[in-house]
Amino acid sequence: MSSEILKKEIILKALSEDIGTGDITTMSIVSNQKKIKGSFIAKEAGILCGFEIVESVFQTIDKGIIFCPSVKEGASVEAGNIFATIEGPASGILTGERVALNFLQRLSGISTKTASLVDIVQGTKAKITDTRKTTPGLRILEKYAVKVGGGVNHRFNLSDGVLIKDNHILAAGGITRAIAAVRKNIPHTLKIEVEVENLEQIEEALNAGADIIMLDNMDLQMMRKAVRLIDGRALVEASGNMGDKDILSVAETGVDFISVGALTHTVKALDISLKLT
Amino acid sequence: MSSEILKKEIILKALSEDIGTGDITTMSIVSNQKKIKGSFIAKEAGILCGFEIVESVFQTIDKGIIFCPSVKEGASVEAGNIFATIEGPASGILTGERVALNFLQRLSGISTKTASLVDIVQGTKAKITDTRKTTPGLRILEKYAVKVGGGVNHRFNLSDGVLIKDNHILAAGGITRAIAAVRKNIPHTLKIEVEVENLEQIEEALNAGADIIMLDNMDLQMMRKAVRLIDGRALVEASGNMGDKDILSVAETGVDFISVGALTHTVKALDISLKLT
Amino acid sequence: MSSEILKKEIILKALSEDIGTGDITTMSIVSNQKKIKGSFIAKEAGILCGFEIVESVFQTIDKGIIFCPSVKEGASVEAGNIFATIEGPASGILTGERVALNFLQRLSGISTKTASLVDIVQGTKAKITDTRKTTPGLRILEKYAVKVGGGVNHRFNLSDGVLIKDNHILAAGGITRAIAAVRKNIPHTLKIEVEVENLEQIEEALNAGADIIMLDNMDLQMMRKAVRLIDGRALVEASGNMGDKDILSVAETGVDFISVGALTHTVKALDISLKLT
Amino acid sequence: MSSEILKKEIILKALSEDIGTGDITTMSIVSNQKKIKGSFIAKEAGILCGFEIVESVFQTIDKGIIFCPSVKEGASVEAGNIFATIEGPASGILTGERVALNFLQRLSGISTKTASLVDIVQGTKAKITDTRKTTPGLRILEKYAVKVGGGVNHRFNLSDGVLIKDNHILAAGGITRAIAAVRKNIPHTLKIEVEVENLEQIEEALNAGADIIMLDNMDLQMMRKAVRLIDGRALVEASGNMGDKDILSVAETGVDFISVGALTHTVKALDISLKLT
Amino acid sequence: MSSEILKKEIILKALSEDIGTGDITTMSIVSNQKKIKGSFIAKEAGILCGFEIVESVFQTIDKGIIFCPSVKEGASVEAGNIFATIEGPASGILTGERVALNFLQRLSGISTKTASLVDIVQGTKAKITDTRKTTPGLRILEKYAVKVGGGVNHRFNLSDGVLIKDNHILAAGGITRAIAAVRKNIPHTLKIEVEVENLEQIEEALNAGADIIMLDNMDLQMMRKAVRLIDGRALVEASGNMGDKDILSVAETGVDFISVGALTHTVKALDISLKLT
Amino acid sequence: MSSEILKKEIILKALSEDIGTGDITTMSIVSNQKKIKGSFIAKEAGILCGFEIVESVFQTIDKGIIFCPSVKEGASVEAGNIFATIEGPASGILTGERVALNFLQRLSGISTKTASLVDIVQGTKAKITDTRKTTPGLRILEKYAVKVGGGVNHRFNLSDGVLIKDNHILAAGGITRAIAAVRKNIPHTLKIEVEVENLEQIEEALNAGADIIMLDNMDLQMMRKAVRLIDGRALVEASGNMGDKDILSVAETGVDFISVGALTHTVKALDISLKLT
Repeated sequence: MSSEILKKEIILKALSEDIGTGDITTMSIVSNQKKIKGSFIAKEAGILCGFEIVESVFQTIDKGIIFCPSVKEGASVEAGNIFATIEGPASGILTGERVALNFLQRLSGISTKTASLVDIVQGTKAKITDTRKTTPGLRILEKYAVKVGGGVNHRFNLSDGVLIKDNHILAAGGITRAIAAVRKNIPHTLKIEVEVENLEQIEEALNAGADIIMLDNMDLQMMRKAVRLIDGRALVEASGNMGDKDILSVAETGVDFISVGALTHTVKALDISLKLT
Repeated sequence: MSSEILKKEIILKALSEDIGTGDITTMSIVSNQKKIKGSFIAKEAGILCGFEIVESVFQTIDKGIIFCPSVKEGASVEAGNIFATIEGPASGILTGERVALNFLQRLSGISTKTASLVDIVQGTKAKITDTRKTTPGLRILEKYAVKVGGGVNHRFNLSDGVLIKDNHILAAGGITRAIAAVRKNIPHTLKIEVEVENLEQIEEALNAGADIIMLDNMDLQMMRKAVRLIDGRALVEASGNMGDKDILSVAETGVDFISVGALTHTVKALDISLKLT
Repeated sequence: MSSEILKKEIILKALSEDIGTGDITTMSIVSNQKKIKGSFIAKEAGILCGFEIVESVFQTIDKGIIFCPSVKEGASVEAGNIFATIEGPASGILTGERVALNFLQRLSGISTKTASLVDIVQGTKAKITDTRKTTPGLRILEKYAVKVGGGVNHRFNLSDGVLIKDNHILAAGGITRAIAAVRKNIPHTLKIEVEVENLEQIEEALNAGADIIMLDNMDLQMMRKAVRLIDGRALVEASGNMGDKDILSVAETGVDFISVGALTHTVKALDISLKLT
Repeated sequence: MSSEILKKEIILKALSEDIGTGDITTMSIVSNQKKIKGSFIAKEAGILCGFEIVESVFQTIDKGIIFCPSVKEGASVEAGNIFATIEGPASGILTGERVALNFLQRLSGISTKTASLVDIVQGTKAKITDTRKTTPGLRILEKYAVKVGGGVNHRFNLSDGVLIKDNHILAAGGITRAIAAVRKNIPHTLKIEVEVENLEQIEEALNAGADIIMLDNMDLQMMRKAVRLIDGRALVEASGNMGDKDILSVAETGVDFISVGALTHTVKALDISLKLT
Repeated sequence: MSSEILKKEIILKALSEDIGTGDITTMSIVSNQKKIKGSFIAKEAGILCGFEIVESVFQTIDKGIIFCPSVKEGASVEAGNIFATIEGPASGILTGERVALNFLQRLSGISTKTASLVDIVQGTKAKITDTRKTTPGLRILEKYAVKVGGGVNHRFNLSDGVLIKDNHILAAGGITRAIAAVRKNIPHTLKIEVEVENLEQIEEALNAGADIIMLDNMDLQMMRKAVRLIDGRALVEASGNMGDKDILSVAETGVDFISVGALTHTVKALDISLKLT
Repeated sequence: MSSEILKKEIILKALSEDIGTGDITTMSIVSNQKKIKGSFIAKEAGILCGFEIVESVFQTIDKGIIFCPSVKEGASVEAGNIFATIEGPASGILTGERVALNFLQRLSGISTKTASLVDIVQGTKAKITDTRKTTPGLRILEKYAVKVGGGVNHRFNLSDGVLIKDNHILAAGGITRAIAAVRKNIPHTLKIEVEVENLEQIEEALNAGADIIMLDNMDLQMMRKAVRLIDGRALVEASGNMGDKDILSVAETGVDFISVGALTHTVKALDISLKLT
């Protein structure tokens, strides 16, 4: 629900930003009475995400606009597929088209990318998870798109999850102290994740009661050793700037999660167009 | 100034989104007194953009944090270059790091992409311009990044520029009527741009007094004919889904502007890291 | 649409301002069940403007209030004319009456004033246009009222139109440089307007490619010369503190636009009352 | 203080409205380093009001702008008087000029009008007071301007004062019942004002304990009778659409207050200009 | 109405605060289709207050949730009484339950406490009134709960009522001067209340025309003298930290109002639960 | 940091609410120049909480007001202790006094209550923890006050912690299914807490991998059995409507946490006054 408030605010901002003091082209030309229909067409293959947002964009502009998808959120489409129709007052549809597509293409791009990585690691136990490297202001939507693409979400922000990184360890004077300090201060409902760079740190983290161990930029061999060392005593997350092709090898080391910043920091919009008729 | 209000709001939203009810890891570990220093390092070559935003992010968190770039906004960096330092309270720097990088990497990615296209068309009279295919909520920053990369901005939104598209033409009953309707309604301070698909439409648009002609998805041959036909009577803008390699050929047709949606809808974050010491 | 968001915000502010923590008089006296009817009556002749706002004010207070105008927005009324009825819950109508009238009287006052000037210049080619001398916070409504009165709108604000004034010329080191600097930085969708004080400046502005020339506080003779000199090479706008009687003479010089600050900075509310029955 | 929050909000709205996404003319031409000076000049005689707002407008844009009035708020000026200077970054001054003047001219217009009426009734005991017929969104400033002009403020809004009008009396079934209903519901810190149309109603209102009697649209003779009848048992307020010349006669009937809607609903901006040097 | 805007804002804040980025437990488990019913049960005796807020909380979450009280706002309940039912989508009801109860229990606690004091002073002319010692942000609701409990409201805030306290008297140089200064500046629609500590101050306050005298922390004997001295020339309000048992004695001194900070600063939530079936 | 934004917003709301359109009493009487000093005095024994908020309230009103506590946040005071001084402009101090005290008394009340319970269970391993039964809008402050009083915080809201309650279990079709459904959907950084009513449910919850078991309204004997059964395989939290005297017995059963709704839903403001001199 509260996420609904957030989403509504995002949509209002986007419309304000794009419409300014009024769509002067459309207002000059298109009468309020004129109705039109149109189709949303995928111009390339991918996973669709963002139907609710699209509907909400148009509904915010004009309650009379009906957006009707013919497939489910998360459906896979091929180039050329028509996956939704729209109809209603021409003026509202023309005014909202760009904002709606901006959301739809970006979110579908994220779901598509996620799905391709999920596909690669299929058969391993590794789950693809996101990071906080999201577009400022759109995290709630982008994390949703990761889920739609088959990924799982990492912590939403700095207050609902603990990740003790190298600088925290440095500041605390070691992993043991860092974990102790955190445990004393956080709600007992949260796990503690620690970022480690070598096997000694893993040992220390486990002894201090870490719930999740993040292997930071390790090579495959060290990852395998790490997984063996941890041996189920904590969840294991692999992180780092890895290419798509390396991801399977990482998954095969036995880690539980692979976190991928590029899911959201480097997005290729899925090519989608709205064809009015 | 008012853009300053917008930017401040964007930064506050981004910080709220990422910090939630508090950075529980840092608060548990790092004392308010502890000071640290750090360096921003480019992990790949590119054009830097977003220094003011980065400074503003950290200043919003803690007035005591000093962000100090050693190069100018828009500077070109190579992988490995240190281009800025930061110092101040450790807690604030750790808490703000991710949001600052999220802005910096995205904007630098846009400037880098823009600069590469500007480079390609150098020597022609074509200017690279952006579109409304920006990230919802971040248009003011993304359009700025296009400028930093050497591009020029198209209209900001639907209220400060006129672009008569195919659906407007259809609704109006022809280009002549569409232009007449628009001219009657808009401030006399705005030009009128018309999207055309063939040479007949160009002729009609010119006769009706269009100030700018957008050539939509034309092939190179037709573009050349279009430019010749228009012959300086209006500005010419080429648009469409063109690959990087095609862009020089388009520029060589003699168009004045090439608008590229991918500048902002498909962004590759520039890899930058903050190394604390 | 986005202008709808703006208008909604203006109405909410106005109601908050006037109702504070509750209309204690009405709440004490009038039961929620009681229904009433009423009529809006013009107490003097004029042009009506603001029906949508009035409806929206009452709808914001109570969805059950029906506001029903019997004439169109922009209609001309005589003293004594009933031009709209209202019915619904007495409490909501009593609570909203003042805010609704505050909007309606002010906007109708602007439309009335505009229409009287438009009337004066009828037969010439001059159009009456507004300025940025609007009431802070109400520009979108006041510019609308100017249109309803038969005027045309000038740029909405500092970001969607260029007007190079004397101080800009001074800062740039001349008109030619000012125009060049602006052209390099603004979207190609915007025209460039320059304010000039004499014929030499006009010549320079035209040579530098100005699209619109604003004649600032010139006397009629110089205006005529200016119009002849420009001779269609740019649009011509006359500006300055002119009385109503002078405006026809100005129009007859052949200028395209006459901008009148008093349309919005000096408003005489149209006398309108709501008679409940 | 809270009024400070309101004022700050009003200023931010006004600047957003006028600057949009940026003052493209000034940004293109004027470097950030350039400093200028200027003088505010009255182009006609009047009472000045709004110095704090003007200062706040410029400070919001740029802390480096110094606005320095040489007279006090509420001072009387003649045409040609320089009453304040400004200096600082040229870009900020040029960008803020219009908004600052829009506030200053409007508020000074209100103070000037108020002062002229206060002057007329001097020697009588009548005070000039405002109404709720203010510009939506600017009430706090406009009521302040009335005070600066020597008037006194009526209730701010519907929650901090009681005014029982004809429709309330009708709904309650008489003045006695209306007053009783109100007294039961409102804080004991508020007086009760009743609008009456004849002498019988006055008698009833006094018997029911009204603290203030508003004489609505009575002629002078009836007003005199009313004042005599009330004879100090309640405060007396005269209201209605009266011309400037009638106001002295009304004052001489012995009423305590004369409320004048035109103070704020029909404002003539005081002509003021900012001359940069 | 405007209070409606305030209330809506309070509810949105409360929901945002409690739901954060989403109710992850309920979203994981409960399908959107599932419907449930439930009953609100009083676990202890008291006065119920907050039905509209409860309804509004659930309606904000999901329009399909029906909240249906079987008694009126302000009804008295015994432990074990079912006083309302709810039905609709399970997910929305589960997500909103806590916020709804947080409002309902707090407001009912206030009404219950108020009613108990009103009961104690029954038969005297004293009315129980609230203070400004309310929970920051919830004053409009808490003052409403006082009314529902049978109390009357004191001024809402610092702008809609005058209360001259010891420090004001000190700053003004005496009660007479303080009252004169206030009378000159405030709207004539407001009464003037003065806080006094002894009989001399009462005499001075009456002579200066105070409308209300607040007896601050006086003992019963002095209160009785004060009431006799004032003798109807002003309203009398008793204030101070009094226990429940003392309140009847205070009432019997003949004061008009007893203001009780504890009504809102020390609230015992009424124990209420929502039993789903 | 973001919590700073939240707190700032809470303070602004509180000041707006209390000051309305201006503190008319103080503005009428106290000149802007007058300076005063004052002392904060505890009128009863307790734990102090809210110094930062108090400082922020006064700083928001006037930067010249200096609030200077002589003890640390969380200090214990006796009746009569002066624990802080204030000095600066009289007007700002008088205007802000009530809001500052409203925060300070409420938060100190919560810390005091928490500390008393923490004291009772001292020597056992049980920690006192809060719930979501907080005052709408003030959760961030109230949870902070619990910490200052020596308690620990439970989850902040519905998105940063999982608590599977009876209705969730019902909806899911059993504990095992509920836990499985949740685990699939939530970030791996969160623990899973389950509310149980008997020993069978505990067994099922442990088998399904619950991290925390909440014993809901069990009697002491069953709690002891539960703790023995769980035997360190999960954290144990006791919940329910328990009186202060029972809390030690509960703690002695060996539970890890005792959650107490009354910490925040039933607050007795600590009596504190500001004595100006």
